[in-house]
Amino acid sequence: MSGLPDQAVECVPNVSEGRRADVIQQLCAVAAGVAGAYLLDVHSDPDHHRSVFTIVGSPAAVAEAVFRLGELAVLSIDMRAHRGVHPRIGALDVAPFVPLGQTTMNLCVGLAHALGRRIATELGTPVYFYGEAALGPERKSLADVRRGEYEGLLGTIGTDPSRAPDLGPASLGPAGATAVGARPPLVAFNMHLRSSDVNAAREIARAVRASSGGLPGVQALGLPTSRPGLVQVSINVTDLAETPLHIVAARVQAEAQRIGVELAESELVGLMPAESSLAAAAALLALPGIARTQIIESAYEDVARRAARQGEAPRP
Amino acid sequence: MSGLPDQAVECVPNVSEGRRADVIQQLCAVAAGVAGAYLLDVHSDPDHHRSVFTIVGSPAAVAEAVFRLGELAVLSIDMRAHRGVHPRIGALDVAPFVPLGQTTMNLCVGLAHALGRRIATELGTPVYFYGEAALGPERKSLADVRRGEYEGLLGTIGTDPSRAPDLGPASLGPAGATAVGARPPLVAFNMHLRSSDVNAAREIARAVRASSGGLPGVQALGLPTSRPGLVQVSINVTDLAETPLHIVAARVQAEAQRIGVELAESELVGLMPAESSLAAAAALLALPGIARTQIIESAYEDVARRAARQGEAPRP
Repeated sequence: MSGLPDQAVECVPNVSEGRRADVIQQLCAVAAGVAGAYLLDVHSDPDHHRSVFTIVGSPAAVAEAVFRLGELAVLSIDMRAHRGVHPRIGALDVAPFVPLGQTTMNLCVGLAHALGRRIATELGTPVYFYGEAALGPERKSLADVRRGEYEGLLGTIGTDPSRAPDLGPASLGPAGATAVGARPPLVAFNMHLRSSDVNAAREIARAVRASSGGLPGVQALGLPTSRPGLVQVSINVTDLAETPLHIVAARVQAEAQRIGVELAESELVGLMPAESSLAAAAALLALPGIARTQIIESAYEDVARRAARQGEAPRP
Repeated sequence: MSGLPDQAVECVPNVSEGRRADVIQQLCAVAAGVAGAYLLDVHSDPDHHRSVFTIVGSPAAVAEAVFRLGELAVLSIDMRAHRGVHPRIGALDVAPFVPLGQTTMNLCVGLAHALGRRIATELGTPVYFYGEAALGPERKSLADVRRGEYEGLLGTIGTDPSRAPDLGPASLGPAGATAVGARPPLVAFNMHLRSSDVNAAREIARAVRASSGGLPGVQALGLPTSRPGLVQVSINVTDLAETPLHIVAARVQAEAQRIGVELAESELVGLMPAESSLAAAAALLALPGIARTQIIESAYEDVARRAARQGEAPRP
């Protein structure tokens, strides 16, 4: 990942709004309005009723952009009326920081904690820290933090000590709560099945996810879609070194074949690291371990940047 | 390809020396010795008795580096004693220029013609222009230019008008002749078969290459290797838009299966464009058309570069 500035982070806030185009538009404008932070992608899904923003840049700029996005989400989204097929606890549902380039995970943990404080104090929203930013082992997993979703949390946040937030009020307003985290790069993608039976998707999800004995570092859910004859295996790969994307894709394919359903096109949610694309290409072409240095554009960028840093003088 | 400077070219000179480590070392030093040109890769193959250099950078710097490499090749290689399994006509056998980023093919044609003039005049070597730099349709194809190889050209260059060089003497010295060209990006890779029978490799090469009715934009040869139990399908994909790499790999795999031989690991000769790696990943993950903008590192580089160009001022 030498193609990036020395201090760069990614944050992938997920907001519980995937239907109102005007609101999504405003959220984008806010997220893109901080110099030094770049909104690279927005993936809105009306079935999930959720939008996933990919923001990269300098640490302070990214944190500021995410805070502003959260502020607008809290003002414009009412969780009491929110229905969607994806688990969620709040308007700004999750905000994970991801180190890029030479950036350390520690820096991302610090960013998460600082953003969590602002969300709790300035927006009055309960905050849970998860992933590498978790304050205890029981909040490492986002699935645990989000258990019961917004509706479940309503009745327990003020009474069950194990559900008390890390920061902010122990009560839920219309904007719900926010999980703020730090984690390694993750790839989210949806594989679609030509079937009207969501149980087919659920069966495949069970077969591939780590929690039910499938592939390490893989989370998966079987979900319906609004498109007729199409159900979805919604996948997060959280440990790309342990289980590369193409292994997951092959496993889903094999399971689909086993139960006799056909795969349709997949979709990427957000972006993927260059490493994942290279690993897939290497597998397909039977080229063991293609590296960044074997891709013309990347290799050229690396040597040109290195030369520029050294202030290379013309040689005779 | 927006990740590159506005004027950037690649040149991939192939030199008929793949065995003497000291000579290859000297060739590398010379090729890497021009400021603004970067030697990204050297692939030496003792069976081919050939080394492939990948040099990128500003047009003038790359042309100068290739000229110096050619000069040393002409001085240190004697084609009269050269034996290798890969077709060749000279010490500096071929030198194709490839446009990168926003660079035009016309610029590469100009570079090829200028380099050809220097090789003919300063090194006294016969020069043939091929590809987009060809002066007539009969020299478009490198295979036609190289027909009969060094040994065949010895007897015809001075007598057969159809084999007369475009520039330089109509006679062959110990350094042979050079084909200088311009072409779109090409990927060269070798797929290996677990077999001792070179005819297996030849049969598969025939099935996949365009000239015998296979895949458009694909050249392939079946070749022996010095490794026991391994033969090689040596492949050039010259039209990556028409036939992406993973289609070629799948076809070779299918043909190998059909005749009952097993594939071993492939090897890339030189580098591949980012586009090819993305296309393979897209195919494997059933993600239709992943773009550069969906790869975190590339997308970030692009927006950051654009912002730097515009001298972006902080927004309120």
